[in-house]
Amino acid sequence: MKPAYSRRQFVKDIAASGITLSAIHAPLQIFASPKKDIVRIGMIATGLRGQSHLEEFLKRNDVEVVAMADPDKGMMADAQKLVAQYKKKAPAEYTNGNYDYRNLLKRDDVDAVIIASPWEWHVEQAIDAMHAGKIAGVEVCGAIKLQDCFDVVKAHQQTKISIMMMENVCYRRDVMAVLNMVQQGMFGEILHLQGGYQHDLRGVLFNDGKTPYDSGVEFGAKGYSEAKWRTNHYVTRNAELYPTHGLGPVATMININRGNRLTALSSVSTKAKGLHRYIVNYPGSGGENNSNAKVKFKEGDVVTTQIQTANGETIVLTHDTSSPRPYNLGFRVQGTNGLWIDNRAGEPEAGLIYFEDKSPEKHTWENTKKYMDEYDHPLWKRYSKDAEGAGHGGMDFFVDNAFIECIKRNVEFPLDVYDLATWYSITPLSEKSIEEGGTLQHIPDFTDGKWEARKPVFGSEIY
Amino acid sequence: MKPAYSRRQFVKDIAASGITLSAIHAPLQIFASPKKDIVRIGMIATGLRGQSHLEEFLKRNDVEVVAMADPDKGMMADAQKLVAQYKKKAPAEYTNGNYDYRNLLKRDDVDAVIIASPWEWHVEQAIDAMHAGKIAGVEVCGAIKLQDCFDVVKAHQQTKISIMMMENVCYRRDVMAVLNMVQQGMFGEILHLQGGYQHDLRGVLFNDGKTPYDSGVEFGAKGYSEAKWRTNHYVTRNAELYPTHGLGPVATMININRGNRLTALSSVSTKAKGLHRYIVNYPGSGGENNSNAKVKFKEGDVVTTQIQTANGETIVLTHDTSSPRPYNLGFRVQGTNGLWIDNRAGEPEAGLIYFEDKSPEKHTWENTKKYMDEYDHPLWKRYSKDAEGAGHGGMDFFVDNAFIECIKRNVEFPLDVYDLATWYSITPLSEKSIEEGGTLQHIPDFTDGKWEARKPVFGSEIY
Repeated sequence: MKPAYSRRQFVKDIAASGITLSAIHAPLQIFASPKKDIVRIGMIATGLRGQSHLEEFLKRNDVEVVAMADPDKGMMADAQKLVAQYKKKAPAEYTNGNYDYRNLLKRDDVDAVIIASPWEWHVEQAIDAMHAGKIAGVEVCGAIKLQDCFDVVKAHQQTKISIMMMENVCYRRDVMAVLNMVQQGMFGEILHLQGGYQHDLRGVLFNDGKTPYDSGVEFGAKGYSEAKWRTNHYVTRNAELYPTHGLGPVATMININRGNRLTALSSVSTKAKGLHRYIVNYPGSGGENNSNAKVKFKEGDVVTTQIQTANGETIVLTHDTSSPRPYNLGFRVQGTNGLWIDNRAGEPEAGLIYFEDKSPEKHTWENTKKYMDEYDHPLWKRYSKDAEGAGHGGMDFFVDNAFIECIKRNVEFPLDVYDLATWYSITPLSEKSIEEGGTLQHIPDFTDGKWEARKPVFGSEIY
Repeated sequence: MKPAYSRRQFVKDIAASGITLSAIHAPLQIFASPKKDIVRIGMIATGLRGQSHLEEFLKRNDVEVVAMADPDKGMMADAQKLVAQYKKKAPAEYTNGNYDYRNLLKRDDVDAVIIASPWEWHVEQAIDAMHAGKIAGVEVCGAIKLQDCFDVVKAHQQTKISIMMMENVCYRRDVMAVLNMVQQGMFGEILHLQGGYQHDLRGVLFNDGKTPYDSGVEFGAKGYSEAKWRTNHYVTRNAELYPTHGLGPVATMININRGNRLTALSSVSTKAKGLHRYIVNYPGSGGENNSNAKVKFKEGDVVTTQIQTANGETIVLTHDTSSPRPYNLGFRVQGTNGLWIDNRAGEPEAGLIYFEDKSPEKHTWENTKKYMDEYDHPLWKRYSKDAEGAGHGGMDFFVDNAFIECIKRNVEFPLDVYDLATWYSITPLSEKSIEEGGTLQHIPDFTDGKWEARKPVFGSEIY
């Protein structure tokens, strides 16, 4: 006979997990600025990712995009076209080289900026924004070096200006439904989590220099959009290059930096074969004689990272972007009462789930659809109409909405500078671990002890 | 446009992967003994696992079970009952304490023994067998201490007697079909592999002392079968306790100890919550007041191990046996041309698979059924009738058949003492890694350099 899961056990699981039901705290008022009805935005970088944020803002009546900075005049023209399509006033332009964004930051009529530039610019621009008194929403990536993570926290502490970590996957519908289930204690006490970036990016890392996807084998100076800069990281580094899509969602589930923290990691990497093979194999412009076939890529095709936490959970991250594979962020959430795994791209029926107290057949997976519907997060219920048509299956609406609503209400961001520093730090720490053959690396406490008292805020009904 | 996978690329992938098609070498003649028609077997341990091997042997005309050793007279009686059911001659009994097996080893009429005792006995008994001149088939587990792995190899080198690592999952039908696909180069060059032991064992680790499964919360002296000894390991150790079901199958796919080797690992463990929760929650005999509710279990509920190889692949192993979950060994095999993942228990339709050159839709999983049928391993095609009704979905037939056929033909075992030492070593190395907070551990080369020249032999059509 299998023991039945009882209400008594449920209450025990909850007690053990440290969750109090409805424990998501009302965010604190933290900005120096007063509440506002309209948020005046400056765009820092107007490439494809910047344009995606721009379009979310253009749809809204509570946002004015007043200025945009990008040294790439082609991307700037495309961004202005988008503004015109929405019949909004053309924002001022800053296209005079890489540092013209600093002139945008001097404007009195900008409340906040979105930083959607190439990875190597994020931290410098975020720090500049804070010193200029501008709130910043900073796109995802990993830090170039560990010191960057300390520097961005220091700038926040000096200026008291807040920044938001713009991790859209934290807002994926199935991820938020699972967060809801976690916060209701359905998984029991959380033990183990997995996530990653398992996405065949070969057609993004290389193109024909004119169109972004699946169009050739050029990169760097001859590439277009991400191929222009992202691919270079694969030449010079071997690391968990893109940790936050996998880590962010599971970090919110175990209250990282808010009662818990990441303590250590170790990373291993496979050989690097996929990008060279792609170039050599590409019909037409590819082949052995293409000059890029001589490039030696350093980034291993699959990078795996084991992370430990203060509260005794473990996390495994996978970076897998150079091989042919279906898209799958590979989430797994496992607790003492059940587990969820995700095999596809977030479709409600694409996962497998099992709860000891709920699943009708012992030792047998259930399809996720029923649970994704029943535990659809209140935020998604509230905004699903507004999210229709937004980028990445609606996620982009939520991350931009959170950014704007927090500024309007003058409350703290659900994903903040400490989350940014912690999540970004995975990249240089994993790089060092791999370089040293897979050694253990301690993850700094960027909150300097404040994680113990800070309360969870991600997953409110409003943002 | 996505590049098409060409015949030319296929040949390149194969060249890169170091595979020559049909590269599985004819095993070498290695035993000192001559070929034989009948193999005379001694059973060391006649518990439930031993009885399972025993039954496979009783079905065969080329095996005589001449003696059996086990200090547990109840298990011995059950084993003799099984022999009687098959109307075979009752084997001699050795039940006089833990070391009576040594008297069995002295018999002149025993060619080989099967060691299916509790884990802590495997290495000592295998070494004793070799020194007594008996070939041994040794059941799966991890070593108690690293020195055991060196000792077992040394005994082999001193005595020239061979032992077989009895890893049945290497023979699982879907696993062998995937091995077939790997050996045909369909995955391209292999990059990353995963496996594990993800099996809710709570109902095995605890029972009522009379029946083996799901019957109570006793273990140790008051437990029955595995609960009698296996559970103690969860009290005293925190390690990848059971590495071989996950590691063995993927090790054969990348020719570990035969052109490749495991070089290093690091392990992390979650907190230990599941077994205590099971005891406390068990209806009737369980509860807070049961004395076992006071036991502090050391083994973390989920243990993850990252392994690196000489040829640049990585392997992730998961040990997850203390939580409610559907059974799933969690295999993943990924190469430059495709990947396979396994979500259930080996059913041909239960996995997901993708090949760049074969899958009809780009970036889209296929169901595994078609491939499992088309690439069904020649060994399974040959023996599927014989395997019907054998333990663990037929796998047990194959592992026992390989053991017997190799002895009869006087050829080397497909899984040998070096595989045993290497796979067993994961347990003490992971234990040390976890104890030290997740540090990197180097995996010894038990072949002492011979791995470079040794040729792959696992996956022939005969055994």
